[in-house]
Amino acid sequence: MNQPAPFFLDCDTGIDDALALAYLLASPRADLVGIGTVSGNIDAAGGARNTLDLLQLAGYPDIPVAIGAHDPQEGTFHGGAPHVHGDNGIGGVELAPSDRGPVEVSAAELLVQLAHRFPGELRVVAIGPLTNIAEALRLEPQLTELVAEITIMGGAALAPGNITPVSEANIANDPEAAAEVLAADWNVTLVPLDVTMTNVLEENHRQELLASEHPVSQALGEMLGYYFGFYIDIFGRACSAMHDPLAAAIAVRGVEVATAPKVRVQVDTTTGPSRGQTVCDLRGQYLGFPDQRGARCRVVLEIGEKFAPHLLGTLQAAWLSEEQVAEPVT
Amino acid sequence: MNQPAPFFLDCDTGIDDALALAYLLASPRADLVGIGTVSGNIDAAGGARNTLDLLQLAGYPDIPVAIGAHDPQEGTFHGGAPHVHGDNGIGGVELAPSDRGPVEVSAAELLVQLAHRFPGELRVVAIGPLTNIAEALRLEPQLTELVAEITIMGGAALAPGNITPVSEANIANDPEAAAEVLAADWNVTLVPLDVTMTNVLEENHRQELLASEHPVSQALGEMLGYYFGFYIDIFGRACSAMHDPLAAAIAVRGVEVATAPKVRVQVDTTTGPSRGQTVCDLRGQYLGFPDQRGARCRVVLEIGEKFAPHLLGTLQAAWLSEEQVAEPVT
Repeated sequence: MNQPAPFFLDCDTGIDDALALAYLLASPRADLVGIGTVSGNIDAAGGARNTLDLLQLAGYPDIPVAIGAHDPQEGTFHGGAPHVHGDNGIGGVELAPSDRGPVEVSAAELLVQLAHRFPGELRVVAIGPLTNIAEALRLEPQLTELVAEITIMGGAALAPGNITPVSEANIANDPEAAAEVLAADWNVTLVPLDVTMTNVLEENHRQELLASEHPVSQALGEMLGYYFGFYIDIFGRACSAMHDPLAAAIAVRGVEVATAPKVRVQVDTTTGPSRGQTVCDLRGQYLGFPDQRGARCRVVLEIGEKFAPHLLGTLQAAWLSEEQVAEPVT
Repeated sequence: MNQPAPFFLDCDTGIDDALALAYLLASPRADLVGIGTVSGNIDAAGGARNTLDLLQLAGYPDIPVAIGAHDPQEGTFHGGAPHVHGDNGIGGVELAPSDRGPVEVSAAELLVQLAHRFPGELRVVAIGPLTNIAEALRLEPQLTELVAEITIMGGAALAPGNITPVSEANIANDPEAAAEVLAADWNVTLVPLDVTMTNVLEENHRQELLASEHPVSQALGEMLGYYFGFYIDIFGRACSAMHDPLAAAIAVRGVEVATAPKVRVQVDTTTGPSRGQTVCDLRGQYLGFPDQRGARCRVVLEIGEKFAPHLLGTLQAAWLSEEQVAEPVT
């Protein structure tokens, strides 16, 4: 990737989604060509509104944002995670409303359109439930060939879950869609809790964002105040997991993976206690996690460097060098 | 436990079962008062034969051995694991046949009898599928109060499974029975693959057994030759996991546990990809695994010392000091 590659982001913005979005905008390796939203941390329409507002604040109001599925394949949307992300999805931070609205097509339709516009090149980063991606696979069975690769924040391999003892929120919110996406014949990189819970942002990182002169960094720092509050019960201190931005950084090869075997992955779609689990075949653990023959899903268990400095450095470098940054909306 | 406590062993002998049996006979903290067998590594009748032969070789022919369930609660016995334990269950090693036969009662009946004989004192070590234990709970609903505690070798908490990506053999061989036993209101210690796969016996330990003058140690060393062969594909070298003897050692407090939170544990009894999984709620990982209020199942994730030296030392000390050792049967 010497030239920036075209990226499609599917998200449920969400505080860590906002960080992932900012990272993709900032990374010199990514050209963000479209965004879909799905219900997860907040409903799909609310996630689109947050995304549009962030894009305007960041100076990229022209990137198309498409609203995707409101409900998962089975059942109805549960109402989001206000205890984690706040009632408005971004920790109660008030952004200036964007002048733009979402595009007319659905998130799945936008993804299919972009896959045809960038055949063999488009990279997908999916950081919400996989409802839209599964819908796109049904709309366009060639999608698996048109898309270069897909990176998914989701699941728990050997780490505990965060919704149930063994399931993670993005997968648990639509296990049927996740099962379709992970069974499809394409190059998948799964970024599970195993690696997102062990690469955290601390209070000094948040202070660094707040001290930035860039309004997006300031807003992210404010949002993280809310997010850190949720994580006190999990980590015993004010800090946060870095689920979505880590997936984005792995997708753009901004951070290198250290342990990421290609193994068989099956999603539990039963109604039993393991519903929503990503059943990853990691029985090769004692041999150092060799790849399994024929498996196309790479499960990231470890990265090769500290993530927070890379994330903050990427944002800072972009804001310093950029000329297209919008004036703070006041 | 200053006085040796009465122990009931439920097993499917089995090479590592043979080690657990030898350990319980050797430990000054355990008084082995009865043994049940269940189909697992080998069928229940074959396991009883191996157990009787080992008891005679060790000089304890009077400990009652009862044959338990041949089939799991659902379906039929799958035929054992000859690729792991050999066709005869003990790596093809030929022991002199015992003069004794099994007792007339079933394993579950023997357990209930002994629980009444040692009320509040009897400790159970279950190192096979839990079919007999579940049957005993049905025979005698007071069993949970009569038994002081039960230690189970089984399951996989955060480690990969050994039968499927998430299930371990003892639980996977009878998930319905395991669900009953783990849902019962008694003090359970679960010794899962997390700790049995990380405490291994190496070739030098096996040589130590072979060099012993005691026929039981010699026989164990020979059996382990077969077992080590199976584990080459798992560990990349000739060595072996120490599933059953480690559970026995934890049960008698021969080794101390280092990380063993009391948490909710549910067995997956669906027909999905997680069938047979022990779903342990270890979401407290990032706080150092605190106990969960009301949970009575202790899940051992780490022990506080090296196991192999303790195991070999216990056998050696017993054989050296003992006067009741039988003459080698030639």
